[in-house]
Amino acid sequence: MFRAMPSFSRLVRFLSKDGRTYYGDAILPAGVTDISKAKQAKIIRGEIFGKHDVTDQVADIRLLLAPLAMEDVKTVRCLGLNYEQHAKESNLPVPKFPVLFYKPITSLAGPTDTIPVHPLAQEGTGLDYECELVAIIGKACSDVPESKALDYILGYAVGNDVSHRDWQLKHGGGQWSLGKGFDGWAPFGPGIVSPSLIPNPQALRITTVLNGKTVQESSTQDMIFSVAKTIAFLSQGTTLLPGDVIFTGTPQGVGMGRKPQLWLKDGDVVEVGLEGVGSCVNRVEFTKSQSKL
Amino acid sequence: MFRAMPSFSRLVRFLSKDGRTYYGDAILPAGVTDISKAKQAKIIRGEIFGKHDVTDQVADIRLLLAPLAMEDVKTVRCLGLNYEQHAKESNLPVPKFPVLFYKPITSLAGPTDTIPVHPLAQEGTGLDYECELVAIIGKACSDVPESKALDYILGYAVGNDVSHRDWQLKHGGGQWSLGKGFDGWAPFGPGIVSPSLIPNPQALRITTVLNGKTVQESSTQDMIFSVAKTIAFLSQGTTLLPGDVIFTGTPQGVGMGRKPQLWLKDGDVVEVGLEGVGSCVNRVEFTKSQSKL
Repeated sequence: MFRAMPSFSRLVRFLSKDGRTYYGDAILPAGVTDISKAKQAKIIRGEIFGKHDVTDQVADIRLLLAPLAMEDVKTVRCLGLNYEQHAKESNLPVPKFPVLFYKPITSLAGPTDTIPVHPLAQEGTGLDYECELVAIIGKACSDVPESKALDYILGYAVGNDVSHRDWQLKHGGGQWSLGKGFDGWAPFGPGIVSPSLIPNPQALRITTVLNGKTVQESSTQDMIFSVAKTIAFLSQGTTLLPGDVIFTGTPQGVGMGRKPQLWLKDGDVVEVGLEGVGSCVNRVEFTKSQSKL
Repeated sequence: MFRAMPSFSRLVRFLSKDGRTYYGDAILPAGVTDISKAKQAKIIRGEIFGKHDVTDQVADIRLLLAPLAMEDVKTVRCLGLNYEQHAKESNLPVPKFPVLFYKPITSLAGPTDTIPVHPLAQEGTGLDYECELVAIIGKACSDVPESKALDYILGYAVGNDVSHRDWQLKHGGGQWSLGKGFDGWAPFGPGIVSPSLIPNPQALRITTVLNGKTVQESSTQDMIFSVAKTIAFLSQGTTLLPGDVIFTGTPQGVGMGRKPQLWLKDGDVVEVGLEGVGSCVNRVEFTKSQSKL
């Protein structure tokens, strides 16, 4: 079997001070692992999922963007209830198999983008955060055994599976898609860290900080289905493609599970963080109506 | 508001007798509307969702393919329980809002492709068919009112939302994605008919014929949420993109709802048909393991 060998250490996509958008390999000072601290990157030329080179040309980062352009992403898969304590706080049974749902590619957003909240999702209560380890597939795979699954990963990021509990759980006929799929409701980043820097994705501290207060704090060690098990399971009879993005579930501490419950409101600032990767800091913005294109 | 004006009448994608794959505008004899009968097409040059021309160059069709290449499709959305009689036969409540779920783009397949059934979906019972009207988005839209919604449609096709009821309903933690998302489980086609030829998508006969016997027969008139209502609803706070494919739900008569229940088996031939569009004829093929790439 081949081993996916990304040529980068920390893939970023960024607006440069020259006004252009590039893919790059983030440059960090020794000892720093939080990609959001990167000021410069080596420009990457070519196709991220094809032939490309990390050049010696260094660009100044003005703004980190979603680490993959929307046109480079194929399918966004998400797991529900993949931490035992979160299943309990949700009053839902611990699953026997990974609980799979999807988000549309339009839900993807960058590490500092605002989270737009459409009037439909301002009604009722239930706007919530979910910090998650995000795995990005680098090579096509199908029926891959657990022991080889990590070979197909391009890298890891952190993401926020923003959810509206009323639309997710009450008005969707039992299907979670509607309350999780709004534009910009899957910020991820701040970059994508090569598996060579994270040999074990199941030992990383993961957190959400809401307006400066830690509300979720756990370890990916507590995932019910590890990243490798998840990929092995999902690839059964289903081809995972380069550019597929997998949100792997959230630990306990979401707003829905707290007493009293804690819902996001206009202007809140949510920071999701993953050890060895960094953090995404996104402000909640209630909108009148929203059109990205 | 602009009106999307596709330059074709019946978009097909096909393998030509010259060994190449083209997009084309199907040529049908007068009085024939079933695209699967097309022997020739005018070749289309350019981008289907951008600038393109229907040329006068005619090619012979050897094989009709999925009417959109996988790289031209963004997101596949599906509605559940969108015909009242089907909701009743499923013992599920008639929904107040559209019930949304997704399929991955790898589930898409052509009008005569076999439906591969992975060993995972051969276990237990529950392999089922669902004939559906499929609407393809032609122009990006967000927060579109019902009265304008049909303006954003590239055209209509017929599709089969192949489902494994055990994985859909019993082992997915309540989420339907897993049992509906296998490779090749969303054949659609045989082409995409321009809205100019189907001014009213809510008056079309829709059928499934299994091994020569009609098992589903209804009209799109019976849809709970019309195509226009569906697009208006789904586009609230969510940008629909050119190349988004929407399966709009199936009428009564699925195998799960019959007495006795009727499950697809290896070698079965399933034909889904839509008036004014044509039909897809797909053979069920149990596989050992499956990799498309």
